[in-house]
Amino acid sequence: MIDRIKNIRDRFDDYGIDGLLVQSPDNRRYISGFTGTAGSLVISRDQAVLATDFRYIEQATTQSPSFRVLRTFGALDWLPGLLGDLGITKLGFESQHLSYAMHQNIAHILESENLTIELLPSHSLVEEVRKVKDHLEMESLARAIDISDKAFDEVAKNIFVGQTEREIAWLLEKTMREMGADSPSFDTIVAAGPNAALPHHRPDDTRIQDGSPLIIDMGAKYEGYCSDLSRTLFIGTPDDRFVSVYDTVLAAQLTAIATVESGMTGSEADNLARLVIDEAGYGDKFGHSLGHGVGLEIHEQPGVGPGSQTILSDGMPFTIEPGIYITGWGGVRIEDVVVLEDGRARVISKASKVDRLGG
Amino acid sequence: MIDRIKNIRDRFDDYGIDGLLVQSPDNRRYISGFTGTAGSLVISRDQAVLATDFRYIEQATTQSPSFRVLRTFGALDWLPGLLGDLGITKLGFESQHLSYAMHQNIAHILESENLTIELLPSHSLVEEVRKVKDHLEMESLARAIDISDKAFDEVAKNIFVGQTEREIAWLLEKTMREMGADSPSFDTIVAAGPNAALPHHRPDDTRIQDGSPLIIDMGAKYEGYCSDLSRTLFIGTPDDRFVSVYDTVLAAQLTAIATVESGMTGSEADNLARLVIDEAGYGDKFGHSLGHGVGLEIHEQPGVGPGSQTILSDGMPFTIEPGIYITGWGGVRIEDVVVLEDGRARVISKASKVDRLGG
Repeated sequence: MIDRIKNIRDRFDDYGIDGLLVQSPDNRRYISGFTGTAGSLVISRDQAVLATDFRYIEQATTQSPSFRVLRTFGALDWLPGLLGDLGITKLGFESQHLSYAMHQNIAHILESENLTIELLPSHSLVEEVRKVKDHLEMESLARAIDISDKAFDEVAKNIFVGQTEREIAWLLEKTMREMGADSPSFDTIVAAGPNAALPHHRPDDTRIQDGSPLIIDMGAKYEGYCSDLSRTLFIGTPDDRFVSVYDTVLAAQLTAIATVESGMTGSEADNLARLVIDEAGYGDKFGHSLGHGVGLEIHEQPGVGPGSQTILSDGMPFTIEPGIYITGWGGVRIEDVVVLEDGRARVISKASKVDRLGG
Repeated sequence: MIDRIKNIRDRFDDYGIDGLLVQSPDNRRYISGFTGTAGSLVISRDQAVLATDFRYIEQATTQSPSFRVLRTFGALDWLPGLLGDLGITKLGFESQHLSYAMHQNIAHILESENLTIELLPSHSLVEEVRKVKDHLEMESLARAIDISDKAFDEVAKNIFVGQTEREIAWLLEKTMREMGADSPSFDTIVAAGPNAALPHHRPDDTRIQDGSPLIIDMGAKYEGYCSDLSRTLFIGTPDDRFVSVYDTVLAAQLTAIATVESGMTGSEADNLARLVIDEAGYGDKFGHSLGHGVGLEIHEQPGVGPGSQTILSDGMPFTIEPGIYITGWGGVRIEDVVVLEDGRARVISKASKVDRLGG
């Protein structure tokens, strides 16, 4: 955690701050290790304080040895005194997480104490640091990926005609939990037949039918880290249309995996797969981004889509998940998590994937 | 949903607005029925629009028949035009949910289009309406409560010495899911022995031991609504200390249930139980609020604690959950959900509770 605090402080000058207030749960956990649901970090150039209420004092002391734990009373009464103690005069805050009302409250309390402390929006400061994962993070992420891989393989081999989407989703979630997941990392998607045309379909009582595609999109959370895996099955003997669509998506995915390089932008990476799908004539059926970073959040930086100017670099894990969706028929999406190492993508996901269907 | 929109509009004058922007997931779902993860509601005095991207158009159209569904491209490009169409000049926003950065973005885009639209913080407008539940909401809430009640009864009777907290938590969650819950409504708490002194202990590999208290705090989510239930068991034959603490907490809880009335403030309700615990000499061991509203969020308005000036009224469901926590030994918490009807509390929770231990 010491390195993480240092990496945060190294950005203070870029943001023109000499202290940072962190309240969003994922950033708080990332920097301090603290997993309680309430608490604020205040990081100055030479001190790190975790302020929380009586419920979490013991937990904070255990989980965050690099932090001085301060017991708080009331919502913000403790803040002015602490900022004075730490000598902070330019306090950065998480502008995309702190609510308008909380910002007003903080500004008001500083003003009413006659403190001349500037509040400076520090957009994505911690998120930028979080893009590149350290060894501990990669271990948890790999474990989360391993759990969803194995749960998929276990459940997928037993799917039968007549089973409902909801039943399959629950079997997947139960299996992940029994394999050690904290929880699913998002609401499991099981989309059969025409439902597979909706990228974010919620599992319902639709029954699995013979002769139709089935998309499963699932993930496990382990020690806070989120895996993300999509596979598309065909129930029965694949017809020509499915073969054509599946092979196109698979070709696009494998092309992106084989050719993405550190130094590309997210947009350039996206385009590697998009070109293949465009060429095959399905360009208008791939309506989402190629992928996204994964970590403590299921969707985090780097963005890997048409608009993303983020530079991809070694140590960043992200998904590669092209898809084709055809209203009334269904869809295909294939998704793995990769991490950039020595300039290239290493695929972490190991769940079974139909390698080639024909064509 | 028509009534809910009307109830929102009825508050426009109080906030000095002629339109409201709603983006927080729970408020969005409450007003529109839409359960997708991205989308904005814009409500004027005579129109209601749900703006979302291509992924959710079908779902929005199905779930939100009272709303005109607008397909969006880009983050906020659609907003100025829509506000113009609807003739909104004073736009309220959810100040405790909208981030500082999003507020800046909206202000900027309105300015760059030369629109003279005022942005006005509308703190808790929707939350105030949500305090009183309608019939549909009470049905979902009652079902959520029924699920956690039955899951508790099923699992509690089979708890044995040597079982771990984590195993019990998973059994509870699995049972709730198999009984129809969407998910747990929060991270299940199972706290054995000294862990029970921590009101928010996370289940770990601690084994259940003979002669110690065990707190279980759990809830189910059903159709979005959250139940919340706490029970305290004693493994083995209760000793004098446990009997004294348990009976005090139970007396405090039953007193609050029997005497809380519509028209009281949350603080007055809290005091009903707190007096009993104070009198018994445990006043400094009850370090949290008596309760909180439940609904789409596990903690929502009304607050039922020492600082709450909210007036409790008919149709509001909330928890009553006094506790006593003794470091190194453990604790006792007993929690039911009640709803105020005809001025008095009706207890909805039906999970078994040890009625009286002795003393």
